[in-house]
Amino acid sequence: MEIACLDLEGVLIPEVWIKFSEKTGIDELRATTRDIPVYDELMRMRLSVLEKHKLGLKEIQEVISELTPMEGALEMVDWLNQRFQVVILSDTFYEFAEPFMRQLGWPTLFCHKLKVSEDGKIEDYILRQKDPKRESVKAFHSLKYRCIATGDSYNDTTMLSEAEAGILFCPPQNVIDEFPQFPVANNYDELKAEFAKASIRDIKI
Amino acid sequence: MEIACLDLEGVLIPEVWIKFSEKTGIDELRATTRDIPVYDELMRMRLSVLEKHKLGLKEIQEVISELTPMEGALEMVDWLNQRFQVVILSDTFYEFAEPFMRQLGWPTLFCHKLKVSEDGKIEDYILRQKDPKRESVKAFHSLKYRCIATGDSYNDTTMLSEAEAGILFCPPQNVIDEFPQFPVANNYDELKAEFAKASIRDIKI
Repeated sequence: MEIACLDLEGVLIPEVWIKFSEKTGIDELRATTRDIPVYDELMRMRLSVLEKHKLGLKEIQEVISELTPMEGALEMVDWLNQRFQVVILSDTFYEFAEPFMRQLGWPTLFCHKLKVSEDGKIEDYILRQKDPKRESVKAFHSLKYRCIATGDSYNDTTMLSEAEAGILFCPPQNVIDEFPQFPVANNYDELKAEFAKASIRDIKI
Repeated sequence: MEIACLDLEGVLIPEVWIKFSEKTGIDELRATTRDIPVYDELMRMRLSVLEKHKLGLKEIQEVISELTPMEGALEMVDWLNQRFQVVILSDTFYEFAEPFMRQLGWPTLFCHKLKVSEDGKIEDYILRQKDPKRESVKAFHSLKYRCIATGDSYNDTTMLSEAEAGILFCPPQNVIDEFPQFPVANNYDELKAEFAKASIRDIKI
């Protein structure tokens, strides 16, 4: 009995902050942890920029709802659904992910949430727990599931290590170099093949 | 952050063995734990009856794929999907549940599995762990989720107790009498109202 643990951004949907900055033309929102390494500092900056531009949750969700999952993502999720139990483990926020989840057919998503005031202003963000992706894999192990995980970035590597099998999906070169123990899939066909290979069952592609 | 934990048979789909016995006309398969209290004895009887009638997994899935979820179940799941993370916790087997999962849009399902030979004969059943529904709620708690659970029968009551809120859905009278601590919903509208009441968020019905 096997669970497919999927990262969200970079695996099924585009990077939300980058796409959001493109849609709104607000360059400051392109910043990532590469530019501002302390996550809390980065998020405070983002929230203050949103406030400055009078972008509340409603306006943000309107922009996000025009975005679509990556090409082929729906078919990939459908393929996995028929062969595994699928759970998405992400460091995004429910409020940002919702328009994508709707398009992906509402897969189960474990992530974080925002604190939103009654008039729609984003006041704060609430992280569910530390190292949530690894903790989720541990929880599935306590339920006697075998886990195959995929993700593209640093925040996925503890999940990939904790799982019985970890697969990097379209990762940047520095992640490939630092984590040579994980196989790399560069497109959904390769990802299917890696899932089939990692499974202890006889999976047809 | 809240997870809706749903029992499957009696909540979203009909009782599979009873429906299967009606479809095939094999009366012995109507037996439940009320007739044969020891679960392993009941399952051995079922497997031997299936073998006698030369019903392998393929034949069983063909019969099951003609069955449909309960009236209103798809709309109920869709309502929950938009307000909670949904996980189905069931004591059925993946191989029996699959045709229903397809119709319900592949929600995440934690249940048991069958051991099937290469020629399709059901040789045995494999329980994933003891008290799996309660263990799942505990695992979600370790991930800092609040759980609201619903089910119709004895095997759901440890899950209902472990969750922050438990709701009985269309239960038999003896379950109502023995577990007066749980509110009862007699249809999906009442179930939505109970989920909204049990949530710590402001849920619109």
